[in-house]
Amino acid sequence: MEKDRIIKRLKDIRAKDPKFSDGRIIASVSTEPFDFAVEAFKIFSDTNALDVNIFPGVKQLEREVIDWFGTILKNQMIDGYITTGGTEGNVAALFVAKKLNPGRREILVPESAHYSIKRAADLMDLKINWVKLDENFRADIGDIESKISEKTLAVVATAGTSSLGVIDPVEEINSLCDDIFFHVDAAFGGFVLPFMENAPCIDFSLENIDSITIDPHKMGMNLIPAGAILFRDKSYLKKIKISPSYLSFSTNTVSGSRSGGAIASVWATINYLGFDGYRRVVKECMENTRFLCREIDKIEGLEVVKKPDINVVGIRIRDMETAYSRLVERGWDILADSRSGSLRVVVMPHVTKPVIRNLIKDMKEILAGD
Amino acid sequence: MEKDRIIKRLKDIRAKDPKFSDGRIIASVSTEPFDFAVEAFKIFSDTNALDVNIFPGVKQLEREVIDWFGTILKNQMIDGYITTGGTEGNVAALFVAKKLNPGRREILVPESAHYSIKRAADLMDLKINWVKLDENFRADIGDIESKISEKTLAVVATAGTSSLGVIDPVEEINSLCDDIFFHVDAAFGGFVLPFMENAPCIDFSLENIDSITIDPHKMGMNLIPAGAILFRDKSYLKKIKISPSYLSFSTNTVSGSRSGGAIASVWATINYLGFDGYRRVVKECMENTRFLCREIDKIEGLEVVKKPDINVVGIRIRDMETAYSRLVERGWDILADSRSGSLRVVVMPHVTKPVIRNLIKDMKEILAGD
Repeated sequence: MEKDRIIKRLKDIRAKDPKFSDGRIIASVSTEPFDFAVEAFKIFSDTNALDVNIFPGVKQLEREVIDWFGTILKNQMIDGYITTGGTEGNVAALFVAKKLNPGRREILVPESAHYSIKRAADLMDLKINWVKLDENFRADIGDIESKISEKTLAVVATAGTSSLGVIDPVEEINSLCDDIFFHVDAAFGGFVLPFMENAPCIDFSLENIDSITIDPHKMGMNLIPAGAILFRDKSYLKKIKISPSYLSFSTNTVSGSRSGGAIASVWATINYLGFDGYRRVVKECMENTRFLCREIDKIEGLEVVKKPDINVVGIRIRDMETAYSRLVERGWDILADSRSGSLRVVVMPHVTKPVIRNLIKDMKEILAGD
Repeated sequence: MEKDRIIKRLKDIRAKDPKFSDGRIIASVSTEPFDFAVEAFKIFSDTNALDVNIFPGVKQLEREVIDWFGTILKNQMIDGYITTGGTEGNVAALFVAKKLNPGRREILVPESAHYSIKRAADLMDLKINWVKLDENFRADIGDIESKISEKTLAVVATAGTSSLGVIDPVEEINSLCDDIFFHVDAAFGGFVLPFMENAPCIDFSLENIDSITIDPHKMGMNLIPAGAILFRDKSYLKKIKISPSYLSFSTNTVSGSRSGGAIASVWATINYLGFDGYRRVVKECMENTRFLCREIDKIEGLEVVKKPDINVVGIRIRDMETAYSRLVERGWDILADSRSGSLRVVVMPHVTKPVIRNLIKDMKEILAGD
């Protein structure tokens, strides 16, 4: 096929699916990437972060990105790398934990954890001992305490659960993990909490946190694929080092070849926004989250499942299944969480007040039977 | 930082590292992606292949890509998905094998296999029973036959080894695998052999092959990240299905979020080149491979390790360590394989006759002590 026809065909196909700016995608954890971040990807689209001998420039960019994470997560000594997303980050963390303690097999995981933890456990034959949730949908600290044993390989906490945006009691869990690997899955909240006033602490200043997953392609506003895994100790990643006979270097990542473009785009996005930029983004998302909650409170038949910790809102709606179908019919990308029996709205930067007003209007009409 | 400064800084950093067109990168399995493939990535850079409800267009493109693989690999019934690269493909294959036969733990792996097989085994607690190589550096078929037992979960073969480009005896191994999962890692050779005259068969027409890894971002000439894993049976991927409570759909991939841009770029590249285009690419790479071998044969102190099956050449050179250092000093990206004691040249599309002539000239001078 000719180049021009290929591009035309792709543009036609893309045009049929929604854009974030259409104001209908309200259950996604991604948002529109910046044009210049896509341009950054393009500049490095021919590079491979695996080939450090050929592309030292990519290595330098990645080091600067990891150092920046060290700053926002309060430890300049961390090590880590840019993953393809949260799943690889969570797999890498538990893989390292397994290497550090090969005899242990059980991980304590809150029922609200991201599915990738289950995926990682399944891959690695780790046994999940599920931790109950308390009345605020947080990991129950008493349940964790009672379940920790000499079999425990790791404890997992989530900073920003997928269904309700809940922050597990990371500080309290930290105090239980003097001798246990503690992994915080902050894939979503890692780009929210460090930029929020009076936020609960989920960073490396808590001395028992061994690893943190934090995803630039979620609230970091970067394009996909761009996650990150960070380790407190520089020796940790060496536990998964592989040195192929035909390479003059070794690799400490779960994946092999890695997109230099993805790394360049993260570098571009975090350098553009910086600490102040992300603070503004988070402030606005949280204002809109509170606005959404206030609007919900005004309407009979709608209820906020719990006051949100961050910019994810669970909404109970009368006759949920019908309401869900009607919202989808009206073009909303919304998701229903079967566990909590609620609709999920992720108040990403593109979910602005006008979008929220439209949503509330439609919900009202649906409740009124229109 | 301002956008313009970010882009300028990135361009400066990129300019310091080599381009494929410089003619010095001769040990990489990647090549320069097409401009329109990067453009295709850009058009879909805001999409996520995980969110099939939001972006059905991406799902359609991926289906068309997998169907195309079905055509070149001779089975229209296959299932599969675009991975982030060969490692994820090999992990997914062995993960499915493990799910199909949870009681078995041992995999038979030729000593020349890609390091990601070791990585996958390590992740999943599979025991590798290493298969010896025969005098042609191929997996020894007698050794495989003697090692197959009721413990065997899977047999792995490589179609294009990383160090010497060797094709394992896939057809003979196939005949031993009536009741055993057989995975072919054709990450490199999958985009070579189907387009070559009189090539050994490595496709699904061999009825015991259960899965094939094939990487668009290697000889497929696509940008990174773009691998692929293919399964003979549509039920296989369902074995690793996860259905998160908060999603209205399930996911059958090892990774979670996946770049729609990567899928669009693969779609663009394969539709541009098509069967005839790849045949031309492979023909030229093989001509250049033979040219390189002929030039090597003319020079005292140089020797081709073995007549190459595909466009990877192992070169024995007198006093290899010195020669390797001298070549690196002269700006060559070349790799030394410690196992076979040889330098590795991958004759990618950018490794043209002038590049080969320069390399031979430098090798001659180094051998002459210049």
